[in-house]
Amino acid sequence: MTDDEISNNDTEIEGSDVGLVSFQDHSFSEPFAFDLGGSIPSFNVRYETYGELNQDKSNAILVCHALTGDHHVAGRYSEEDRKPGWWNLLVGPGRPLDTNKYFVIGTNCLGGCQGTTGPGSINPATGAPYYLDFPQLTLRDMVRAQYRLVSALGIKKLHAVIGGSMGGMQALLWGIEYPDAVNRIVALACSARQNAQAIAFNEVGRSAILQDPGWENGRYQKGQGPQVGLAVARMMAHITYLSDQSLERKFGRERRNQDANITHDPFGVEFEVESYLRYQGKTFINRFDANSYLYITKANDRFDLSEGRSLEEAFAPMKASALIVGFSSDWLYSPRQNREIALAMLRAGKSASYAEIEMDAGHDSFLLPSTALYRAIRVFMNARN
Amino acid sequence: MTDDEISNNDTEIEGSDVGLVSFQDHSFSEPFAFDLGGSIPSFNVRYETYGELNQDKSNAILVCHALTGDHHVAGRYSEEDRKPGWWNLLVGPGRPLDTNKYFVIGTNCLGGCQGTTGPGSINPATGAPYYLDFPQLTLRDMVRAQYRLVSALGIKKLHAVIGGSMGGMQALLWGIEYPDAVNRIVALACSARQNAQAIAFNEVGRSAILQDPGWENGRYQKGQGPQVGLAVARMMAHITYLSDQSLERKFGRERRNQDANITHDPFGVEFEVESYLRYQGKTFINRFDANSYLYITKANDRFDLSEGRSLEEAFAPMKASALIVGFSSDWLYSPRQNREIALAMLRAGKSASYAEIEMDAGHDSFLLPSTALYRAIRVFMNARN
Repeated sequence: MTDDEISNNDTEIEGSDVGLVSFQDHSFSEPFAFDLGGSIPSFNVRYETYGELNQDKSNAILVCHALTGDHHVAGRYSEEDRKPGWWNLLVGPGRPLDTNKYFVIGTNCLGGCQGTTGPGSINPATGAPYYLDFPQLTLRDMVRAQYRLVSALGIKKLHAVIGGSMGGMQALLWGIEYPDAVNRIVALACSARQNAQAIAFNEVGRSAILQDPGWENGRYQKGQGPQVGLAVARMMAHITYLSDQSLERKFGRERRNQDANITHDPFGVEFEVESYLRYQGKTFINRFDANSYLYITKANDRFDLSEGRSLEEAFAPMKASALIVGFSSDWLYSPRQNREIALAMLRAGKSASYAEIEMDAGHDSFLLPSTALYRAIRVFMNARN
Repeated sequence: MTDDEISNNDTEIEGSDVGLVSFQDHSFSEPFAFDLGGSIPSFNVRYETYGELNQDKSNAILVCHALTGDHHVAGRYSEEDRKPGWWNLLVGPGRPLDTNKYFVIGTNCLGGCQGTTGPGSINPATGAPYYLDFPQLTLRDMVRAQYRLVSALGIKKLHAVIGGSMGGMQALLWGIEYPDAVNRIVALACSARQNAQAIAFNEVGRSAILQDPGWENGRYQKGQGPQVGLAVARMMAHITYLSDQSLERKFGRERRNQDANITHDPFGVEFEVESYLRYQGKTFINRFDANSYLYITKANDRFDLSEGRSLEEAFAPMKASALIVGFSSDWLYSPRQNREIALAMLRAGKSASYAEIEMDAGHDSFLLPSTALYRAIRVFMNARN
């Protein structure tokens, strides 16, 4: 095991953007059966690709997103589009996921709300949204839907699966569930099992949503619903993605409003960090569906590779080589939790490396550019297996 | 500075309970002016005392409670009372705050909801509750109200002021604001300034309350109000009082309900930790007032001893000797933040000690018995000044 502890320098960004992109939809007309029971008669997977699939279809890299992420990993939708995909600096010609060499696939997860079928999608049996009739969800279900897409694209074996947070957990599952379909896995800022503290935070968010009168037992109209509860859930979750150091550095005790406002609006925004959090909550409700949030957080909470077995046993089927990455300031999925994954793989006789990246941005560090991280990913992707 | 790092053994509890107690009320018919403007024409302070005040009134120790604590520090209200005061093992004959020697005073803070005047108290000018007409609050206001009580009891100089969390911040303020009125201060698990992360968590809680339709701009009826928002705020805050280790040890991934329930109540309680948190939220709304929660969290967020000066300058007036205690697993007010207080005092030429106690219970460690902690407090209280 390479226990790299590399300090985070100013990041050198190599390579260039993938340019303009668009998403695609793949409709599956065969049913999908869920881990915990229930099925849907058909489903859609939304995805994007960057680079070209080579002739023997051996150069595909699947990118798995985090809790509220999506398939839009890189590039822009138009010349005017100011916000590129969420891992834009990682993917492109000359970048660590080099689109001159690799065919990179981003997909939206099953149960989500950004194109792939989820609780807000139309149930063909009723013509109305599934709402809570959508079957209960696990991360294995999400990975199985990804496998269906990858198979549909004619790819028998992925060059790699890479993801952070929930996406990292999915990468681990790929290694275990489809050992012959993946050569390399990269799991960043994740855990082999959702711990009690992570479940607890998710439960607070769900409580805020479930008790919002706008939730209406999940049967709210599009554009309506438990907006207050969802915003509160997001505000809280957002704190767990950062660190006390990064919050202190970015906001400290900077005041947004002068003391004069205290008498007129005593519980309004007083500090910059309050304004920032409220903004996070407000923008989230415009882009995310509350039911999807409930389903996906539950899927995360149910994730435990060591259920009924040791972690070492869990990794026994894996054939891929693995790079596991922890971030020093991540207190949601701490370095210790990430190191534990690599250690269990090594005990199981697998090829695994662990890198610990020094960054102060907390859990969200994995989304930020880092010379050390990008070098580690580039080297791992290009190494012979 | 004594930088004690003592491991936490099985706690030996010395001494005995104070027995049956009752609270008292002291009504002040003179007005109280608030730091940020506004005043109230009269106010009440609820308090309890244990032990006897000696003839020269030199043996009094003031105990300051945390955010949602109260004046009921020790003892029981009746023989049937199963729940003693919140620091019961610290206070009593032969205990670290030894009531054979000391006269111990617990008070409920200004702005609270457990007997001392707060936003839910009747405004004599209108005959109705103050609601949001209650002036905005600071920790200095709370300490000034405590000082009024102590003076009314004829005490010119306290043997000590002790408190944890918000109570620790109040102990620091006593040292600075009333240098001639206190001989010793003990501040546990606190900070010299509320940092951005702590403000952020409080802001999420306040958002949940303020956006609950039951809040009604603060003018809700007693026993009603923003119960959902308050419960969500408490659930979230409660996680910040614990640690991932203690949650893992207590609950781990223990399931409350069998998987069978998932189909009937998919977002109901599945894990023990969820059940525990929901219980914390539910019991809190029966004992705490939402407006008081808003006022007191805001008072905490406004706390910054270093505002407009260095921390060293802030402690310049202090004459008391100080014991500052951090807890290894406290991530709300981390050991680093507590150590910073003691260091600044030492730089200011004061008598200060710092003890770091190894406990895995997070911020709430200060409420739990610990041989190392209790020994440190006992020695400090009995040492010559």
